[in-house]
Amino acid sequence: MVETGKTKNIGLRGIKVADTRISDVDGEHGILIYRGYPIEELAEHSTFEETTYLLLHDRMPNEEQFADFKKRLAEARELPSFVLDSVRKLPTSAPPMDVLQASIPLLGMADPELQDESREANISKAIRLIARIPMIGAGWDRIRNGHDPLPADETLSHAGNFLWLLKGAYPDPEIAHDLDTALILHADHSFNASTFACRAVVSTRAHMYAGVAAGVGALSGSLHGGANAQVMKMLDELERSGEKDVPRWVQKQLDNHAKIMGMGHAVYKTTDPRAKFLKNMCFRLGNKLGQEHWCRLSTVIEETAVAEFAKRGKTTIKPNVDFYSAPVYHMMGFPGDLMTPLFAVSRIAGWASHIIEEKFGDAHGEKPALYRPSSEYSGHYCGNEACTYRPIELRK
Amino acid sequence: MVETGKTKNIGLRGIKVADTRISDVDGEHGILIYRGYPIEELAEHSTFEETTYLLLHDRMPNEEQFADFKKRLAEARELPSFVLDSVRKLPTSAPPMDVLQASIPLLGMADPELQDESREANISKAIRLIARIPMIGAGWDRIRNGHDPLPADETLSHAGNFLWLLKGAYPDPEIAHDLDTALILHADHSFNASTFACRAVVSTRAHMYAGVAAGVGALSGSLHGGANAQVMKMLDELERSGEKDVPRWVQKQLDNHAKIMGMGHAVYKTTDPRAKFLKNMCFRLGNKLGQEHWCRLSTVIEETAVAEFAKRGKTTIKPNVDFYSAPVYHMMGFPGDLMTPLFAVSRIAGWASHIIEEKFGDAHGEKPALYRPSSEYSGHYCGNEACTYRPIELRK
Repeated sequence: MVETGKTKNIGLRGIKVADTRISDVDGEHGILIYRGYPIEELAEHSTFEETTYLLLHDRMPNEEQFADFKKRLAEARELPSFVLDSVRKLPTSAPPMDVLQASIPLLGMADPELQDESREANISKAIRLIARIPMIGAGWDRIRNGHDPLPADETLSHAGNFLWLLKGAYPDPEIAHDLDTALILHADHSFNASTFACRAVVSTRAHMYAGVAAGVGALSGSLHGGANAQVMKMLDELERSGEKDVPRWVQKQLDNHAKIMGMGHAVYKTTDPRAKFLKNMCFRLGNKLGQEHWCRLSTVIEETAVAEFAKRGKTTIKPNVDFYSAPVYHMMGFPGDLMTPLFAVSRIAGWASHIIEEKFGDAHGEKPALYRPSSEYSGHYCGNEACTYRPIELRK
Repeated sequence: MVETGKTKNIGLRGIKVADTRISDVDGEHGILIYRGYPIEELAEHSTFEETTYLLLHDRMPNEEQFADFKKRLAEARELPSFVLDSVRKLPTSAPPMDVLQASIPLLGMADPELQDESREANISKAIRLIARIPMIGAGWDRIRNGHDPLPADETLSHAGNFLWLLKGAYPDPEIAHDLDTALILHADHSFNASTFACRAVVSTRAHMYAGVAAGVGALSGSLHGGANAQVMKMLDELERSGEKDVPRWVQKQLDNHAKIMGMGHAVYKTTDPRAKFLKNMCFRLGNKLGQEHWCRLSTVIEETAVAEFAKRGKTTIKPNVDFYSAPVYHMMGFPGDLMTPLFAVSRIAGWASHIIEEKFGDAHGEKPALYRPSSEYSGHYCGNEACTYRPIELRK
């Protein structure tokens, strides 16, 4: 047997795979822009619906365009009945991200424009997906708890409606506004792993739903969207165990080469600009709801971890978007295993925009080719050459 | 507005993203090997079950290992009842690949080892997926035609059982053997688009089912697994239209820059070694079944297209695996829209093997990092700098 193999398995880090007009991440300086707008501008002034319009259309809407867009979103919310009928058959123990992944192709089957690959039809598909993913997420939480899913409320914003769907009570406007801001912050992030999976799938000319199901799958991983649930698990375990010396716990984790969930990022080498917003939101919500202990606990972990990592020569490990979204979502009343679906409720805006860009090209009208990379064969041959088949009875 | 952008959108062609021990494609010379074995050796001597063992375990089984493996595969076939209950709710018009994609997370929910990320548990997941994907494919075809899905027959091979499930009649042994060979030929192909999508998804530490659903989505695209259905559509339309001058039709297609489905490949610059086998199989089956006209029609298209492409300076465009698998599958009795699911029935062996390699590393124990490429921002800024939010009433 001869072994070869010399490719560095670096997960394409730093390799520019395509041009994009959608968003840009400057990891050195902690800058994130969507379609030319810094994330701070959008988080402070925009809404999730408006940001979604911006991502999909590459421009801010005027009043007429925005009214039409919001109407289309609100009208698309209702789920076709077969979707819920099918979902009702699933075991109540099913992980919500798996239910969501299974539901995406079902939403496709319900789309009258499924086979229409015009740009307009793809925008319509995007609107339906953005409107309906919250209906699946909240609907499943109701079904698994023995309740009927609630109908959408057309008078509520995207964020407000999601809170209503989940709890069956009209949301506190401040909390709905904070959720809206959190949705803006999570809506896009250039070629992150789930967006790249969406783009890879539709580069074969598969339809948008086939691509979005891949995005949901990638987001479920604990190194990606699944991280917020892991952060909450860490906070919850520390809280329950009554750990008094959190800094020492952090040091021990690092000594054991265990990860601190929510710390460090593939691209950011400084603080994630989204984390700053979410940290402020955490303290504001914590103060309002008498639950500031979650934010204080998170801050102790953050400060200790950053200092301890720096001592070990890792000066670029800072909190990422998941670190403070976890306590924020917890205080808003989301169960841990709905935090990643909530990420999907937002990121679908980016996924759909990237899928449309993949299908119709960038500013230059250039479409990336089907993603079909190469690999380095490091497996065996038999005696320096290809193996010959030997009958089974001659094998040991 | 300032436009930048200079990345060549070449779909990662030629970029080695990872080491792999599973398979190797030499596109210049038309060579494909699985785990050291040339595809010809396997197609001539092995079975799909044995090839699957080889792909999953990186070695050929001995008699005891193989008996155990075949037993596990046969026993895993039966679907949990909730999966079929859920699928029965879907509209009969649903595309089979979408039904399959929706079913993969359902199979995950039914897996008692879903959350177990040991290598052994992942092998078990692979066996369950390989055993059950044919059950979904054939079961859906029965359901949409108003019949109950058939139970698996433990005495039949993987290929034979699939033919039985679909038709409710015991398969002709020669046809079952040819299908078995076709499954071997489609089982793996290094970092093709669907396999890469599977690997990208599980690189986030998502479970195998989340990754396989992405693979199904990518395979559905007409530039990937969807191509065999497109080839059959082309053959069928030519046959129905009574086109007498097929060479002229091919020339016109090329003059109009239309694609000839099944011709050309992202990696092969010469004849796809799998196409040679399938062409022989086509004529053998055609002769047996009195349907040689499909093979003659395909051959005329192939010969004209290769010559016409060469005249236009494209000397590397030759038939790929889909070109002859389409008439072969048609003669075996598969409806056009089941040809891509049939590709999945085979390719799941490769997907599962690659997912396991992605999770546990290559020969050097090295795991690729999460796939998170970079991109070139070619979008706009406002007056050379980031845009400022303007209230909606000020926008035109």
